Amino acid sequence: MTAPLSEEKVFKDPVHKYIYVQDQTIWDLINTKEFQRLRRIRQLGTCFLTFHGAEHSRFSHSLGVYEITRKILSQFERNQFEDWPKEERLLCLCAALLHDVGHGPFSHSIEKTFGTHHEEWSCRIVLGDTEVNRVLREVSPEFPAKVAGVIAKTYSREIVVSLISSQLDADRMDYLLRDAYFTGVNYGTFDLERILRVMRPYRGHIVVKESGMHAVEDYLMSRYQMYWQVYFHPVTRSAEAVLHKVFERAKQLFEEGYRFGFMIHPLEKLFRRELTTQDYFLLDEAFMQTVLMQWTFEDDPILADLSSRFLQRHLFKYVTLDRLDVQQLEKLRAAMNELGWDPSFYMEIDFPSDLSYDVYRPGDHDEKLPILLLDSKDSLTEISRKSEIVRSISGFHMGKYHLYYPQELPINQLEPGIRKIFQIE
Amino acid sequence: MTAPLSEEKVFKDPVHKYIYVQDQTIWDLINTKEFQRLRRIRQLGTCFLTFHGAEHSRFSHSLGVYEITRKILSQFERNQFEDWPKEERLLCLCAALLHDVGHGPFSHSIEKTFGTHHEEWSCRIVLGDTEVNRVLREVSPEFPAKVAGVIAKTYSREIVVSLISSQLDADRMDYLLRDAYFTGVNYGTFDLERILRVMRPYRGHIVVKESGMHAVEDYLMSRYQMYWQVYFHPVTRSAEAVLHKVFERAKQLFEEGYRFGFMIHPLEKLFRRELTTQDYFLLDEAFMQTVLMQWTFEDDPILADLSSRFLQRHLFKYVTLDRLDVQQLEKLRAAMNELGWDPSFYMEIDFPSDLSYDVYRPGDHDEKLPILLLDSKDSLTEISRKSEIVRSISGFHMGKYHLYYPQELPINQLEPGIRKIFQIE
Amino acid sequence: MTAPLSEEKVFKDPVHKYIYVQDQTIWDLINTKEFQRLRRIRQLGTCFLTFHGAEHSRFSHSLGVYEITRKILSQFERNQFEDWPKEERLLCLCAALLHDVGHGPFSHSIEKTFGTHHEEWSCRIVLGDTEVNRVLREVSPEFPAKVAGVIAKTYSREIVVSLISSQLDADRMDYLLRDAYFTGVNYGTFDLERILRVMRPYRGHIVVKESGMHAVEDYLMSRYQMYWQVYFHPVTRSAEAVLHKVFERAKQLFEEGYRFGFMIHPLEKLFRRELTTQDYFLLDEAFMQTVLMQWTFEDDPILADLSSRFLQRHLFKYVTLDRLDVQQLEKLRAAMNELGWDPSFYMEIDFPSDLSYDVYRPGDHDEKLPILLLDSKDSLTEISRKSEIVRSISGFHMGKYHLYYPQELPINQLEPGIRKIFQIE
Amino acid sequence: MTAPLSEEKVFKDPVHKYIYVQDQTIWDLINTKEFQRLRRIRQLGTCFLTFHGAEHSRFSHSLGVYEITRKILSQFERNQFEDWPKEERLLCLCAALLHDVGHGPFSHSIEKTFGTHHEEWSCRIVLGDTEVNRVLREVSPEFPAKVAGVIAKTYSREIVVSLISSQLDADRMDYLLRDAYFTGVNYGTFDLERILRVMRPYRGHIVVKESGMHAVEDYLMSRYQMYWQVYFHPVTRSAEAVLHKVFERAKQLFEEGYRFGFMIHPLEKLFRRELTTQDYFLLDEAFMQTVLMQWTFEDDPILADLSSRFLQRHLFKYVTLDRLDVQQLEKLRAAMNELGWDPSFYMEIDFPSDLSYDVYRPGDHDEKLPILLLDSKDSLTEISRKSEIVRSISGFHMGKYHLYYPQELPINQLEPGIRKIFQIE
Repeated sequence: MTAPLSEEKVFKDPVHKYIYVQDQTIWDLINTKEFQRLRRIRQLGTCFLTFHGAEHSRFSHSLGVYEITRKILSQFERNQFEDWPKEERLLCLCAALLHDVGHGPFSHSIEKTFGTHHEEWSCRIVLGDTEVNRVLREVSPEFPAKVAGVIAKTYSREIVVSLISSQLDADRMDYLLRDAYFTGVNYGTFDLERILRVMRPYRGHIVVKESGMHAVEDYLMSRYQMYWQVYFHPVTRSAEAVLHKVFERAKQLFEEGYRFGFMIHPLEKLFRRELTTQDYFLLDEAFMQTVLMQWTFEDDPILADLSSRFLQRHLFKYVTLDRLDVQQLEKLRAAMNELGWDPSFYMEIDFPSDLSYDVYRPGDHDEKLPILLLDSKDSLTEISRKSEIVRSISGFHMGKYHLYYPQELPINQLEPGIRKIFQIE
Repeated sequence: MTAPLSEEKVFKDPVHKYIYVQDQTIWDLINTKEFQRLRRIRQLGTCFLTFHGAEHSRFSHSLGVYEITRKILSQFERNQFEDWPKEERLLCLCAALLHDVGHGPFSHSIEKTFGTHHEEWSCRIVLGDTEVNRVLREVSPEFPAKVAGVIAKTYSREIVVSLISSQLDADRMDYLLRDAYFTGVNYGTFDLERILRVMRPYRGHIVVKESGMHAVEDYLMSRYQMYWQVYFHPVTRSAEAVLHKVFERAKQLFEEGYRFGFMIHPLEKLFRRELTTQDYFLLDEAFMQTVLMQWTFEDDPILADLSSRFLQRHLFKYVTLDRLDVQQLEKLRAAMNELGWDPSFYMEIDFPSDLSYDVYRPGDHDEKLPILLLDSKDSLTEISRKSEIVRSISGFHMGKYHLYYPQELPINQLEPGIRKIFQIE
Repeated sequence: MTAPLSEEKVFKDPVHKYIYVQDQTIWDLINTKEFQRLRRIRQLGTCFLTFHGAEHSRFSHSLGVYEITRKILSQFERNQFEDWPKEERLLCLCAALLHDVGHGPFSHSIEKTFGTHHEEWSCRIVLGDTEVNRVLREVSPEFPAKVAGVIAKTYSREIVVSLISSQLDADRMDYLLRDAYFTGVNYGTFDLERILRVMRPYRGHIVVKESGMHAVEDYLMSRYQMYWQVYFHPVTRSAEAVLHKVFERAKQLFEEGYRFGFMIHPLEKLFRRELTTQDYFLLDEAFMQTVLMQWTFEDDPILADLSSRFLQRHLFKYVTLDRLDVQQLEKLRAAMNELGWDPSFYMEIDFPSDLSYDVYRPGDHDEKLPILLLDSKDSLTEISRKSEIVRSISGFHMGKYHLYYPQELPINQLEPGIRKIFQIE
Repeated sequence: MTAPLSEEKVFKDPVHKYIYVQDQTIWDLINTKEFQRLRRIRQLGTCFLTFHGAEHSRFSHSLGVYEITRKILSQFERNQFEDWPKEERLLCLCAALLHDVGHGPFSHSIEKTFGTHHEEWSCRIVLGDTEVNRVLREVSPEFPAKVAGVIAKTYSREIVVSLISSQLDADRMDYLLRDAYFTGVNYGTFDLERILRVMRPYRGHIVVKESGMHAVEDYLMSRYQMYWQVYFHPVTRSAEAVLHKVFERAKQLFEEGYRFGFMIHPLEKLFRRELTTQDYFLLDEAFMQTVLMQWTFEDDPILADLSSRFLQRHLFKYVTLDRLDVQQLEKLRAAMNELGWDPSFYMEIDFPSDLSYDVYRPGDHDEKLPILLLDSKDSLTEISRKSEIVRSISGFHMGKYHLYYPQELPINQLEPGIRKIFQIE
């Protein structure tokens, strides 16, 4: 069971002004070491190398997701909507708070190389031998499993899952506002209060009153802009590429039996994919940056160079490709090899739309639930059928191929056919 | 010599909207590894444990100080003020950008224990064998020494020093605005644009037109509020105390010849006070947090416990003391020793006003230059002589003693005379 | 009796984001013609001639005062404070909404000349034969009298009166924030949400938890700054002076039997002080500006000139007087008369502190209730006894004499003794 | 000739923080009575009846358009773009400031009924016997004609015209930001500073660097949202409809020889379409509201009722029509006539897209110049050819028919076929 706090606690928050904690369980979860660890994981990974304000952590984002969820539920309760299952309140709040608790340092790059998955880790932390698990079990023995179910999107009640994970969920609403605030761009701004006011529980779904359609359009446009202006910014992608190459190189060296000058627990277990939740706890961005710093002294020149590039922000340059000419790229790889730049570690082709971030696309192979409008006659319509704006940005696979390469590559020495890739006449 | 950039560069900044770089030298300085290192040093040290938004780095603050200086100089040039020595422009900009380049991780605690001093390190980095020094020398051979002179406040022209370091300098103006933005409080907000407009070079000083007096009052009130509401917040001070105790314990152990389970370059040199600028470069907050994390596994129980407290945010509790009763505190120390809590590491008395932060106090033993008002008859008056508000906050040694101690201390078992300290009847 | 609205209504508001209406009575009051009339009365009178953004009306301010009151009461109810008389909720909301309903156009000038008083008119509108009265009577026959009692500060329960009228009331909190927003200055900004959170009903008073002292200091500093930077701005005072002279001249002419070229109902009744509530309804700023515009064609040159000055913003110039030298001013008056500038209409001495606006001064002959801090031991202390800052701004009669006069006055032709007033050597 | 001011003047502005005046001519223009008159004309006409914050005047908007133009030109000059004709600076600034000087009160309604046209009046004021004309002539005898040419879009240099009047002009940029600020919605917010930075003069056009495409998309989306959420809000349209009917009725009565109880100069000349610039000066919103107030006492019940509806905000209700069924509407008109509600004055069909406001539609019969992107190879492309988002909102004639009618109309008494219009079963 959970108890209300004798006195409401508040956190000062730049995005929501204040975050209100009213339940002992929530307060205890925030104070677990696994949740406090999120203070050492940046919300936007390498993005701070493009937008220097983007140094905020997953800790503040997680509190924000919790707060938006709390506001939605409080609205549902104030209006006494019958379609809202009141008994799920605490479950929603806990899942909102914990949905990102499994995020590791620089998740994208690490996950690509080592096959970890943050959602899976969130569930392991919720279910394993952790402080988080102990707090949740105090609510009831089966409570941790329910929370993990919501995070894994397998929980039986869609309405609970959709608050945390859908095309219009508390997670996205917080990160758009928060990332906009900390980067300083104003693309991510939309009228949160209005959207909260037009949300309704309705026959097992969260829907939106039709009168709020323009507000949702505005939210979706914010998302669109944030993706193209911030999340997919080529400099951020370049940093991501360099970091990915560092890990690929380290993994290769490890598998080849290379003796690292610097090795620290639990790095080896990460390489061996044998991390326990106790080990995982140690993996934060401070750890990873320290490893990178020490690797700048490694004997392996590629590992040392790439680590140094990331820390000193000597990132790869990039060029936009009109199309993907496989043969031409093969030739480039060969030429790079000849010039002493191993293309496996000094070249990356990136196509920003196949990323974990996604723009709104109903009907796609995307597990995210669509946005439904509820009209005055109580019928539901998927929003892109009513809004030309939404139609124009959905199903969008726009995005261009980018080629990343080191600034020092002597492009002028390449043969003209290859040089054309770099759009230099 | 320096050259203008062929095309102005901009950084998106949440506080100033954009930061404009117009000189090759400035651009090159930003790209040195010593300056990039500031991305890994938080601007507000342990304050993020109180205000979770306060995760911004000294990198963004340093850019901000540069930008405010640039705006001030641009105003001086546009108005063609005769008392402004135009030839000092680049010197001012470089000193503004680099004034904090010597800051280490969690400066306050580290400096107290190991006797490093950030200003001194800034000068060493400017003058030593560093990328920063190489960029500065390209301007002229004696340029690094001039920059170090401004940072050390020994440069011959007071007007140059006062832009970077006075009661109304670019440093403070940026940090008040920036810290307010990232913590989310609005105490630090004042009308920067107006203050910039009323600043004037005048006979070797930077002065303020009398018509701007209320704007300066507002700025000083912001400072006052930020000190008492944010910088001296008891939870931040508690985190500082825990951290300080970690380092004190480690130093003691080191001096006693304890064999650390985890030791990493250049930690030993920090203990021995033998850091070179190359070593210093490795010391960032990622490094220090990793050390703390590894120390949670040390055999020494005090070091392990204190490190863990800091990382898990199990900070000390505190109580406000009406006065400092030395005898009573001696008794408390004895009692703690008996209970197994070594008071050297589990108790701290803090008096927030004797800190490196200071409130406005002309006439005090403070090296900061006072604020002078210029009236329509061209005479100068120190502001507190004209403003009752300023008078009321200057010379202020307010502040109360706080006693910090572990939550687990069994206060009830103490004898009543000592228990009174904790204001429990 | 009153009923809740079947669906909450909202107004979009730039200051509070949204204003929420939940009661039929409030909704009906907003839709009365007397309340709608407030759309045609500016909140800040002549201030828009200094700060062009200050064009907002008493309508939006009145909604804001209502909204802040609603938020305070909602907090009281959520926390179930025993000292709060729940049955007074609707009374508070209605009084908050209606406290300014009796404001006329350019109140200060008109009230000075014609002896009307806006608080008295608010009561007459609440009690008279009006739409407002009809809506209030639907609650209960004695309800209008109660509302008038709160507005007139004669209502028996101090706690109700103090919400609307004290040193920390909903009225001031709204106008500081709103006037700051519309003028564009940021002096008026303070943390409303925090202040609302530390307010408590306590033994018949509204008090503030001691932990909120700094937030209240910040609010009081905002007030101080707004008074000296915005409300007492000499250009606003100049416009006020010109307007006052217009009315003085018109009144004199009327009393002398002058035949106005333009006379329109109910202007004559204003002159005769015989306005009924029906007449009063017609008196708005559109009316008054139209009268001024038509008076620019009057035969009386002084009336025509002054009216034109106000509309074309050819205001009086001003000079600050170090002290009030009555003899010298007498000489100036004589000299002006000789030069053909009747000093009764072309000269004004203004001392900004004896105005209807006031800064915080406990113990003064001010009916406003002081701010009391509630400490952890449940004892109350007046704030200036704990806060040095508040002490420094209370009891403040600062302010300087200003002399207003027409730009065209040939100062150089005055004899040197008089010319000294104008600080010209 | 014009001279720079000896000291820059500033206006505090909530949108641009400060507005800077550097030329004597601009300062003198602002102080003319014709420009000051804009203080008495609301920027958004009847919109304040929907969004109560929207009480700002054309005066502040005009200053804003001037300020944005000043910023654009200052950027052009700083970058020394060769394609910018520097000698046109003052012309641009004057035209920016004066482009709306001919706006009358509640322009839309008045213009529809009386055939006045604000652009034509702006030119008449610039060219006629006015203070504005006298100030302009001081620059050079032919200067007024040039300014009028820019306003009328007949000036020979397209680049000058397009700053003030194109799809991305200073006028729109200011009103979107300003109207968003004063209404309190955040749809109108976009990154002005970024857009200004990517604008370029190029071969006689103002173009946008391709790298700024997303910023322009964001601006166009703001426009789209503002049109549908604010400018076309049905309540604003309803107020517009009522006002239009007032004037239609008054005109009809006048033409029928009705003797008005209240008639005031220059109302009759407005009816007769014989206004001179001197007369026009008197026509402001104060004047018009006073006329409406007096007309509430007219003997003609329709004129009295409609005037009262507008002032008391008893507006028409509305219903959205799926399509325009002319026959059905004829029947409704007949039924209304029978019930005593003259449909000429109590019914209005409105289709929001055929208004003076327009959304972006290149290729349409719209005189506004398109937005051109300049790529790195110096070729120009119209933006909708590169941006799917822009394509989706251009050529948009979306919008629905609305039927406006009095709330008191007894719909239930209508026969079922007509009743269906009101979507009541």
